[in-house]
Amino acid sequence: MNRPTRRIGVLTGGGDCPGLNAVIRAVTKDALNHGIEVMGIEDGFLGLIEDRVRPLTFDDVSNILTVGGTILGSSNKADPSHMPVGRDKQGNIIYKDLSEACLITLETHEIDTLVVIGGDGTMTCAAPFIERGIRAVGIPKTIDNDLWGTDLTFGFTTAVEIATEALDRVHTTAASHHRAMVVEVMGRNAGWIALHAGVASGSDIILLPEIPFSIDAVCEHVELRSTRGRRFTIICCAEGAYPAGGEKIVERTDPTSPDPIRLGGIAKWLSTQIEDRTGVESRHVVLGHVQRGGTPCAFDRVLSTLFGDAAMDLILNQRYSRLVAWQGGRITDVPILEAAGRQRLVPPDEPLIAAARSVNTCFAEG
Amino acid sequence: MNRPTRRIGVLTGGGDCPGLNAVIRAVTKDALNHGIEVMGIEDGFLGLIEDRVRPLTFDDVSNILTVGGTILGSSNKADPSHMPVGRDKQGNIIYKDLSEACLITLETHEIDTLVVIGGDGTMTCAAPFIERGIRAVGIPKTIDNDLWGTDLTFGFTTAVEIATEALDRVHTTAASHHRAMVVEVMGRNAGWIALHAGVASGSDIILLPEIPFSIDAVCEHVELRSTRGRRFTIICCAEGAYPAGGEKIVERTDPTSPDPIRLGGIAKWLSTQIEDRTGVESRHVVLGHVQRGGTPCAFDRVLSTLFGDAAMDLILNQRYSRLVAWQGGRITDVPILEAAGRQRLVPPDEPLIAAARSVNTCFAEG
Amino acid sequence: MNRPTRRIGVLTGGGDCPGLNAVIRAVTKDALNHGIEVMGIEDGFLGLIEDRVRPLTFDDVSNILTVGGTILGSSNKADPSHMPVGRDKQGNIIYKDLSEACLITLETHEIDTLVVIGGDGTMTCAAPFIERGIRAVGIPKTIDNDLWGTDLTFGFTTAVEIATEALDRVHTTAASHHRAMVVEVMGRNAGWIALHAGVASGSDIILLPEIPFSIDAVCEHVELRSTRGRRFTIICCAEGAYPAGGEKIVERTDPTSPDPIRLGGIAKWLSTQIEDRTGVESRHVVLGHVQRGGTPCAFDRVLSTLFGDAAMDLILNQRYSRLVAWQGGRITDVPILEAAGRQRLVPPDEPLIAAARSVNTCFAEG
Amino acid sequence: MNRPTRRIGVLTGGGDCPGLNAVIRAVTKDALNHGIEVMGIEDGFLGLIEDRVRPLTFDDVSNILTVGGTILGSSNKADPSHMPVGRDKQGNIIYKDLSEACLITLETHEIDTLVVIGGDGTMTCAAPFIERGIRAVGIPKTIDNDLWGTDLTFGFTTAVEIATEALDRVHTTAASHHRAMVVEVMGRNAGWIALHAGVASGSDIILLPEIPFSIDAVCEHVELRSTRGRRFTIICCAEGAYPAGGEKIVERTDPTSPDPIRLGGIAKWLSTQIEDRTGVESRHVVLGHVQRGGTPCAFDRVLSTLFGDAAMDLILNQRYSRLVAWQGGRITDVPILEAAGRQRLVPPDEPLIAAARSVNTCFAEG
Repeated sequence: MNRPTRRIGVLTGGGDCPGLNAVIRAVTKDALNHGIEVMGIEDGFLGLIEDRVRPLTFDDVSNILTVGGTILGSSNKADPSHMPVGRDKQGNIIYKDLSEACLITLETHEIDTLVVIGGDGTMTCAAPFIERGIRAVGIPKTIDNDLWGTDLTFGFTTAVEIATEALDRVHTTAASHHRAMVVEVMGRNAGWIALHAGVASGSDIILLPEIPFSIDAVCEHVELRSTRGRRFTIICCAEGAYPAGGEKIVERTDPTSPDPIRLGGIAKWLSTQIEDRTGVESRHVVLGHVQRGGTPCAFDRVLSTLFGDAAMDLILNQRYSRLVAWQGGRITDVPILEAAGRQRLVPPDEPLIAAARSVNTCFAEG
Repeated sequence: MNRPTRRIGVLTGGGDCPGLNAVIRAVTKDALNHGIEVMGIEDGFLGLIEDRVRPLTFDDVSNILTVGGTILGSSNKADPSHMPVGRDKQGNIIYKDLSEACLITLETHEIDTLVVIGGDGTMTCAAPFIERGIRAVGIPKTIDNDLWGTDLTFGFTTAVEIATEALDRVHTTAASHHRAMVVEVMGRNAGWIALHAGVASGSDIILLPEIPFSIDAVCEHVELRSTRGRRFTIICCAEGAYPAGGEKIVERTDPTSPDPIRLGGIAKWLSTQIEDRTGVESRHVVLGHVQRGGTPCAFDRVLSTLFGDAAMDLILNQRYSRLVAWQGGRITDVPILEAAGRQRLVPPDEPLIAAARSVNTCFAEG
Repeated sequence: MNRPTRRIGVLTGGGDCPGLNAVIRAVTKDALNHGIEVMGIEDGFLGLIEDRVRPLTFDDVSNILTVGGTILGSSNKADPSHMPVGRDKQGNIIYKDLSEACLITLETHEIDTLVVIGGDGTMTCAAPFIERGIRAVGIPKTIDNDLWGTDLTFGFTTAVEIATEALDRVHTTAASHHRAMVVEVMGRNAGWIALHAGVASGSDIILLPEIPFSIDAVCEHVELRSTRGRRFTIICCAEGAYPAGGEKIVERTDPTSPDPIRLGGIAKWLSTQIEDRTGVESRHVVLGHVQRGGTPCAFDRVLSTLFGDAAMDLILNQRYSRLVAWQGGRITDVPILEAAGRQRLVPPDEPLIAAARSVNTCFAEG
Repeated sequence: MNRPTRRIGVLTGGGDCPGLNAVIRAVTKDALNHGIEVMGIEDGFLGLIEDRVRPLTFDDVSNILTVGGTILGSSNKADPSHMPVGRDKQGNIIYKDLSEACLITLETHEIDTLVVIGGDGTMTCAAPFIERGIRAVGIPKTIDNDLWGTDLTFGFTTAVEIATEALDRVHTTAASHHRAMVVEVMGRNAGWIALHAGVASGSDIILLPEIPFSIDAVCEHVELRSTRGRRFTIICCAEGAYPAGGEKIVERTDPTSPDPIRLGGIAKWLSTQIEDRTGVESRHVVLGHVQRGGTPCAFDRVLSTLFGDAAMDLILNQRYSRLVAWQGGRITDVPILEAAGRQRLVPPDEPLIAAARSVNTCFAEG
């Protein structure tokens, strides 16, 4: 027989995402209102390993609803079961399983349930603890909206708004100077941000990781627009978009590499290619971290509050090992262990692709 | 046997709503791409009565995606079956059915299908034409998000963002001056905007038309916050919120009326009541038309594009008399005649109300 | 011989203004860097009377640059030399001079210099202390930009940006619905916000307190635009604008007053008049407190930092009794005692009035 | 004796800048109101060479006040006296003086006065025409605010607002992840944008072209902050900032170049250096073209309107060959020929540098 939860530990893992603090606030307030104590774990699983834990009160979460980032801090790559602890004589990194340290931290602070806010990587870190019987509920976090099991995650809508605003700004410059402008948005494996921001900004070409593109098709479309009297082209491309048949364009890590395609990211490569092949002046912008920081939009604050409340509902109902999810326009939940390690990509029959095509957006499929 | 649509007429009716132009653009581009001609009807049904119709081309809908308002113009109260045409000797308005004029306009311009973009009122105007066999599809438009048959309409998310931004601004003033601030947002019958913007802004009290409030409960909450050391209170109230048992607070039309509750709208009344009863300095802001104008947010541009595309899909599939809808996170459609005249209010079991309560939001129910 | 300042007390008085925290931050950091201690006085002169004072550290002013309001709190009408302390038997308020209490607070906390951040009213409160030999420097604060001695104050530019954004939004609604829209912005005595926001938004008519208007001229311009095919008119009016020859339109305080012109503010009155006289549908929006809250724009954060730094320069150079000012595009200073009680109105030869006229803006002078 | 101007030609040259359309609108309306005809010249001097000229009416400039870019188009490098017209046998570009073509265009369209809106490069192109007796007035345009003779140009304030908003967003990510974040803003030779946006965002380190930096000093400051418990550092750097003693970091044009410092811009280089030297995780963002496109802020719309009006005043007073300028907080003018070819850099005694230092901003001078 399970005793109800008396003290939760909350942690945030992975990259920044607008709405994290709104989730922490909702979980904390809801828990305290039910007489459950709340411990904030610092810097994701790292704080659990290093015993950096502090109580959270109403005052701690007051005025954080609109603040970007996470008051708990985060860590990108701290997997307790596989932590780098030094190097051997050959210089290779030595990894060690520090899960025990985490369990001790939980015990020391009498944390009987974990609220894990994070993406695929964080849920994967949480999985072994769940398998060992630690009570946990998950709240999905991915700016790219590519987590399996949920149609929507907080932060995504904010990222799309920011990217769209940048595309809007770039639009007028392109039109005034008769240019092709390539704007690179987030999305290594999933093109949701590029698809939404591309449609929202009326981009002429949208390039997604899910639809490898033909550089010939891109250039043809740029030229087609010229012949139709449109002297500019806006291209919204996901960072993970790549030419069909070609390897992915990645940041050059080895400066001696001769491969030009690997130099400087897809947007830069595209812009050079377009200018070389069509003669149309081209520029690129890489939006980068601007998309994942700062105040969440109202939509994401609402979603974050719903997610936080739903996580506490799972705990109050003793439905552990579940991940809060949004499906079919409503809150639900899925097993954490099923979600970990799976991705949600833009499917070929996504209605927004069809809608984009109907307003003349080109996907330049290879 | 039906011949496929060859020329559509597009009209926008009712109040302003961010995303109208994005819908017009999507419908027009999609139609032209399918070889269907597009006629824009000016100022809603008024243009149909007065034969003010013009062709729409790709150029006409270029660069309107981000523009607020409607390039076609709108009219608020033009019901062809019941148009004011003058006054009788006693000064009473004479109404006349001008539906014939509309039919002649359609015939003159060989418009074989209508795309009606509007809310409940506009759909009610369209109903008699549908009943007479005119082919039409509808696209739902209501800033208040209170149209039956669809979970979501374009413009609503933008309105919530604008209202939230205003609430955020007011927040700091309230905190600096130890005040109660009452912010009145749109929503005569449905409190969706107040509920969403209230949660998104972390408002302390949210007042909805669906939950008649107790002014005692409002004042108690203001005082409770004071005793807890919070020296300010943010109240987000729908324009249609009203005290339980009391009549609705409306704009005073008769300046000789002695009834103080009717003076100046609910926000002003509330602010006066709070200051009088609790001694806490109070101010009010009425956001008004700012919420329904200007550039749609990215989310609404995407939704508008999906709606426009869905309307054309109905036409291409000869599924007339249907209203595009958003249900369960996806595009669908419902019969126009069923939607006309029905409203979607915030239900008592709306999950966002529960979530709001769990973060200490007070609804002050009477 | 003067000993240099060793501990300053900082207070903020009067209404909210974006940039207050940025000023507090600059003063505090600059002082601490020079080995001067900083005491924050709560709620303006009220905190001085009631001995509510706390030390400010680097941590206290970290992360407040972008936050609206004032971390010190403010009070609108606390004049130490004239404080309400109760009522006599006839019910009249009894006022008392509590300046001594302030002096005791300064002595208790060994505050040897005051940094007074406020507008005309706050400087007037400070004047008697300066005359009694208390060291003080002033930093001008007025959202209306109407303080004598300085061309510019922080907060004003933010207010203009917010008002302009609202006017932009209202623009599209007016155009779609063929309406006159009256937007009331702040400015009881000075029309700087209305003038700047009016020009920035391309308003058709701008009404300032400094130029009493003719309602006939307003209506003529609305009709003139109709005849030229512009079916809408945007009117940006200061709250203190009033009809020539007429009394000012003010909030109705006595509900039994029969005077319709006094009912509900100038914007509402104007909108009713325009609709009645021209038949053009009219609406009004009163922006209110939204203009003075929230994050300051970048321009105001820079100006606030310059002002805070300049105040500390005055103190370090032992140039007391001076008010920081911005004149001719650079920082300077004027005597506080000269500035108190004087206003800077829009002069008839203001170049922006001429520029506005040259782009067809109407001032409807009576 | 000079006959007054009867028909002006307006052109915009150089890079995009928010406010260009607002200037065109002001010039056009003002001219038409004075009975002077207006011809719009397309794509800067290129349109003058190629005889692409069209009349501008009130309708053409209606609704462009808020629109980014330029309705006339621009060209970056079209100097009529030195136009590339082909290549010789060795493949070298052949340049030709096409000034005659420009003069013919002016004569053909009876344009008796030019309004040249542009920066240093555009004014240099205009100089030979002025020297040949063509009447011209100039309006200064430079997003970097580095034009000699004027304290302020339109577009600059908008660019600072956009850069500050991006820095604000990045701030929360840096704080959550304990990172150094390098944000590169515009400014090849002058660091005005970096200085203003850096101060406005509370950046910890600001790097300007005018103050060559020491990478050691940068890293020391990052580490100093760590020891003080601030686990993140925001660095705002101008694109033209460079290490003292070192060559400028430029975009790598020759992919075979082995010089790592030349690879990918200053922000990327800095971020790599900081991570390598201090072990603090570092990321970079290059804002790029986002800063120069889109809607101008209210401040820039006002300034643009003043500039346009001032240019027409010069013409109406027959004061040709002058460049509109903003000095000491007011409109004035300087000789175009003096302004061409001279730059306004951030001087060592700029008050904002001192103010920035007083709030602990580090300039890391080498």
